[in-house]
Amino acid sequence: MGGNSFGRLFRVTSFGESHGPGMGCVVDGCPSGIPLSTKDIRRELTRRRPGAGGASTCRGERDEPEILSGVYEGKTLGTPIAVLVRNEDQRPGDYDTLKELYRPGHADWPWEAKYGFRDHRGGGRSSNRETVGRVAAGAIAKAFLSTMGIVIHAWTSSAAGIDASGPCADPGAFDWDEIEGNPLRMPDKAASALAMERIESLKAEGDSAGCTISCLAGKLPPGLGEPVFDKLDARVAAAMLSLGAAKAIEFGTGFAVSRGRGSELNDTLTAPGVWKTNNSGGVLGGLSTGAELRFTVAFKPISSIGKTQETINRMGEKTEFIIQGRHDVCAAPRAAPVVEAMTALVLADFILLQRSARV
Amino acid sequence: MGGNSFGRLFRVTSFGESHGPGMGCVVDGCPSGIPLSTKDIRRELTRRRPGAGGASTCRGERDEPEILSGVYEGKTLGTPIAVLVRNEDQRPGDYDTLKELYRPGHADWPWEAKYGFRDHRGGGRSSNRETVGRVAAGAIAKAFLSTMGIVIHAWTSSAAGIDASGPCADPGAFDWDEIEGNPLRMPDKAASALAMERIESLKAEGDSAGCTISCLAGKLPPGLGEPVFDKLDARVAAAMLSLGAAKAIEFGTGFAVSRGRGSELNDTLTAPGVWKTNNSGGVLGGLSTGAELRFTVAFKPISSIGKTQETINRMGEKTEFIIQGRHDVCAAPRAAPVVEAMTALVLADFILLQRSARV
Amino acid sequence: MGGNSFGRLFRVTSFGESHGPGMGCVVDGCPSGIPLSTKDIRRELTRRRPGAGGASTCRGERDEPEILSGVYEGKTLGTPIAVLVRNEDQRPGDYDTLKELYRPGHADWPWEAKYGFRDHRGGGRSSNRETVGRVAAGAIAKAFLSTMGIVIHAWTSSAAGIDASGPCADPGAFDWDEIEGNPLRMPDKAASALAMERIESLKAEGDSAGCTISCLAGKLPPGLGEPVFDKLDARVAAAMLSLGAAKAIEFGTGFAVSRGRGSELNDTLTAPGVWKTNNSGGVLGGLSTGAELRFTVAFKPISSIGKTQETINRMGEKTEFIIQGRHDVCAAPRAAPVVEAMTALVLADFILLQRSARV
Amino acid sequence: MGGNSFGRLFRVTSFGESHGPGMGCVVDGCPSGIPLSTKDIRRELTRRRPGAGGASTCRGERDEPEILSGVYEGKTLGTPIAVLVRNEDQRPGDYDTLKELYRPGHADWPWEAKYGFRDHRGGGRSSNRETVGRVAAGAIAKAFLSTMGIVIHAWTSSAAGIDASGPCADPGAFDWDEIEGNPLRMPDKAASALAMERIESLKAEGDSAGCTISCLAGKLPPGLGEPVFDKLDARVAAAMLSLGAAKAIEFGTGFAVSRGRGSELNDTLTAPGVWKTNNSGGVLGGLSTGAELRFTVAFKPISSIGKTQETINRMGEKTEFIIQGRHDVCAAPRAAPVVEAMTALVLADFILLQRSARV
Repeated sequence: MGGNSFGRLFRVTSFGESHGPGMGCVVDGCPSGIPLSTKDIRRELTRRRPGAGGASTCRGERDEPEILSGVYEGKTLGTPIAVLVRNEDQRPGDYDTLKELYRPGHADWPWEAKYGFRDHRGGGRSSNRETVGRVAAGAIAKAFLSTMGIVIHAWTSSAAGIDASGPCADPGAFDWDEIEGNPLRMPDKAASALAMERIESLKAEGDSAGCTISCLAGKLPPGLGEPVFDKLDARVAAAMLSLGAAKAIEFGTGFAVSRGRGSELNDTLTAPGVWKTNNSGGVLGGLSTGAELRFTVAFKPISSIGKTQETINRMGEKTEFIIQGRHDVCAAPRAAPVVEAMTALVLADFILLQRSARV
Repeated sequence: MGGNSFGRLFRVTSFGESHGPGMGCVVDGCPSGIPLSTKDIRRELTRRRPGAGGASTCRGERDEPEILSGVYEGKTLGTPIAVLVRNEDQRPGDYDTLKELYRPGHADWPWEAKYGFRDHRGGGRSSNRETVGRVAAGAIAKAFLSTMGIVIHAWTSSAAGIDASGPCADPGAFDWDEIEGNPLRMPDKAASALAMERIESLKAEGDSAGCTISCLAGKLPPGLGEPVFDKLDARVAAAMLSLGAAKAIEFGTGFAVSRGRGSELNDTLTAPGVWKTNNSGGVLGGLSTGAELRFTVAFKPISSIGKTQETINRMGEKTEFIIQGRHDVCAAPRAAPVVEAMTALVLADFILLQRSARV
Repeated sequence: MGGNSFGRLFRVTSFGESHGPGMGCVVDGCPSGIPLSTKDIRRELTRRRPGAGGASTCRGERDEPEILSGVYEGKTLGTPIAVLVRNEDQRPGDYDTLKELYRPGHADWPWEAKYGFRDHRGGGRSSNRETVGRVAAGAIAKAFLSTMGIVIHAWTSSAAGIDASGPCADPGAFDWDEIEGNPLRMPDKAASALAMERIESLKAEGDSAGCTISCLAGKLPPGLGEPVFDKLDARVAAAMLSLGAAKAIEFGTGFAVSRGRGSELNDTLTAPGVWKTNNSGGVLGGLSTGAELRFTVAFKPISSIGKTQETINRMGEKTEFIIQGRHDVCAAPRAAPVVEAMTALVLADFILLQRSARV
Repeated sequence: MGGNSFGRLFRVTSFGESHGPGMGCVVDGCPSGIPLSTKDIRRELTRRRPGAGGASTCRGERDEPEILSGVYEGKTLGTPIAVLVRNEDQRPGDYDTLKELYRPGHADWPWEAKYGFRDHRGGGRSSNRETVGRVAAGAIAKAFLSTMGIVIHAWTSSAAGIDASGPCADPGAFDWDEIEGNPLRMPDKAASALAMERIESLKAEGDSAGCTISCLAGKLPPGLGEPVFDKLDARVAAAMLSLGAAKAIEFGTGFAVSRGRGSELNDTLTAPGVWKTNNSGGVLGGLSTGAELRFTVAFKPISSIGKTQETINRMGEKTEFIIQGRHDVCAAPRAAPVVEAMTALVLADFILLQRSARV
């Protein structure tokens, strides 16, 4: 059916190519009566926008959202909420040389193998710009979740090989405002400065850097998730791996559990909903436990680099090329609000599904 | 809607509690004309059954599948294929003491928080026995995929902290028959023996071990996957994280990409569908590249251990208990055929979805 | 994906061929805590079974349901509820002559055109016996709806051209026990006797008869339905037209509205939820109004008749044949519990979907 | 999930309130490579627009569609196709008096009962203007179907109680250009003139009229439809009953089958795909037979009338009012292109689903 919808009750459908008229989404299934305005969406889009930091592109879009439907007198109607963000800073000419060849690390070749045809300008729909629709929809999900006091925070836990404080560190002590103001959204100032230095250096070489983004969601009711296939962690994993450059995800103690023993890793209740440890990352049997949901996503280095690369063209001939145009160097810090948006979409959906659990 | 269905065109619905009358599945959307018999399903269920190895339970089920519908004269009809496997070796009495308390590391508490009520016998539907339905459905998916020459192999890449040959090793040289005969399904005999030794030792202590299972799928057509939300890796991740004890997944070079640079990690075409490297694990932009699909899943140690554990009971009082009954020590080797089954289900679905890509 | 699932939150998946091992269903998404036993399902299956009346076949099946999962200690668990009914009275030999030809009025030819292959025995999955799975699932839906006091009644409003009391008559005065005991489930004794006479006469001629089944559902909360595509009437229409021999449906005043005027047909509120008239059949804008849901479905005469008929065979040659084997003469009275079952499934689903309407 | 999406592979999501910023749709799953331009969509929207005829409103909208995504160099990309139509002729002031009361025959009261809140301006999302999104999406479906030679025609078969030529007449002889130019889209000029006269007379009285719209689809491949729940006729019925004022549908010989006998009504093959009769309306067992798909939908009179009507207000008090603002008198002729659009959406979906039928 195309795979541009996500969620079962709180359901987003996303649209838009990087250099077409605009990007957007339709959220169907958002309950009525939630306060919502353009401002709520603009705030999240601004967080996603290319910044002045060394890690980001300079595409000069304002990313001004227009709510086309579903909101009346400042509240959601229960009808589909369509949001449109026009593409303003289009420079399709930048991409002319790429029309006939397949960029390494990009979806160009498999895309053409699938559809027989592609919009090569900026990667078309496989551009990072596609996340505009996700972030707009996530802002609506956040408005819903905030009526229940649920909070979601994502941060850069490592960049260019420099660890901030790791997925197991205690974000209870994080200063979220400080992180938000930080050029890499990295909680640890010293690490952030070091990582930024490495990123600048890679940029100067025409190269790019990977990173990890960690995320937590707190104040979740227990029992969120729909076993056996639509478990909370299964849906979060799907949400995260649907992001362009994501290659891995781990929950709680993560990959390290494969080396541990049960007696150390089993999370134990000390009172209803109170857990002694949270190795599980807040999910057991696919259901939220009442402890914080915690996970970390690995992003590969941005595939568009400034170096000469080899590839083949449409005739199957080997060729060399250099990517012109704008591109980020590292997924951080812009990936953080996108991770939050996808988390919000997953949670909003499960909150509604939960309402059907009991007679 | 309950989350017991998976897939959009090739769609499985699973049912059954560990100590109820039986486990099973209905596969809807399997194309007509595929040779299929009980034997195909039995073979996979046998691979999943508890073995004689030190890592597995001794539940003495034959796991005999019955095809209730959808097959006629040895071929699929295009109608729903229902498969039933009776539960034979039920010892619900083993679980009486667990009725009033919540086992650490298990879904007992969140399950009851969600539904207000649970079948405590062997974990009910959150038992590992639930994978019987997955494996039966996966056998049907494999029958379909084999008509296209697609092959899927999963193996234990680490157990109890002992690495076999890692997710990045070349399985091109693996002897699959040898692995299948191996008590841990671990490709490296020496590692396997060492891991088995550690597992036996943990078992003797009443403890349990984690592991990683790696998987590859070869001969995939390029372009499988439905961006932007139903990308190939997103769906594989959902499939794997829907497994009971899975806590993490990585594709290709995996978490290590977060520390690399673009110029090293970008996979490059040398001819149509031929890639110089496969850091991406066979997925770019959410689409299969024609290279092997490769991923690794981390499983936590089995939560049911033989040690005395603390927890609380329904009254919220602290208490201690020891789990009686049967239980595995490590998800390996039984998780391997389950990982294969879920991979087969994802791929069968995408093969059919791909048929809609072009006019 | 195959089309053997129905509903979005309260979702049934049906399986089984007429002369395969059995028929059944899996209901996923049924809330936990609903009292349910085999008895509830058996009662509805018995209502659907061939009776002694002149309009029904004599297939001697007991139709004994087995609940395979999802119920524990007499209550639903919130997990999938699988129900199996074995096919006992199989006489596949009756159908040997039909293997090579396409019965008039049946799906034989388009089925083979679609799948390239069919189970010709009793129509395989296009047999009326397929409704066993629907009725079993509907019994579960009824158990859920009865916790809210919702009632559903279907009756034969016409058979063989004899009208009982028409879709517009007032069923408020109906004696439902009397109707249930009636060989045609027709509310009007005199009409029923006359219709039965005509049916017997058609049967003697080797011919068959059509009928209409009317249905009402009372005590519905207002607002059920999900505009704009999943309106209450749209889903009921889909449910009914998915029945084998159904060819038409009308709500409330029905087709006659096309000849009326707005000033006469507009239903008017006299108090919140209280309507002066119910021309709409209890649905406005796709939402339940609080008035009774009312509709009538037309069923064509049973296609299997006892007369010699012309057709073509697989070689495309013209041929003549007579259907042996058992068959009903008229969809009434057996269609009534099936119509109720499908109505129950639609309503159960909308009751759950309604829970997401507001923040 | 909200019910604003329709279709499984060729899937439309619709949005927009009558007096909000705009109406539109997103079509996900449209195959790549189909020629498509704004012109294709504008043509269908123009057919839907209020005309100069006596039966239509005079809302002066240009209904200019903008394609926001999914089309590049004149062809579909395989990505979501979003279409936006701005609302231009908004006169929300016309509706101020309606804010506090519930119009008879409209969804005002059940809508507020469901969502607790509504956009009263022109009925918000329950306005007939909502069909703009359907027609835009249907134009895309038609572009796809036309690549296969499939044709769809809808016409007014009766209006204000005057029959054109009935659902059973032979449209083989229809002059489609003449019908399209006709103020009621009625094939029979004399009947059309008579119906128009009655409609003008009802309009003068401040009253409104019902109608039936008939539809055929030709050159369908056999086997379209997904039994047992997503049969071709079940989906068409859902599509049609999802239209605002639709109250009934019948296929082929329709309601009359309930009074006929099998020996007369059974459609018989004379050669593969060639049928002696088409009482079934081109659907047997839920699958297209290769004969023309034929059905008729009944629309009630427009609920907004010019007479004084009784109702209650939000305080539950009885009150009288007259609807100001623009409104049609009869669903014909504007419903015809909407019926075609929904038919095209159903067929496009089944064409894609059919691709999964065989191995």
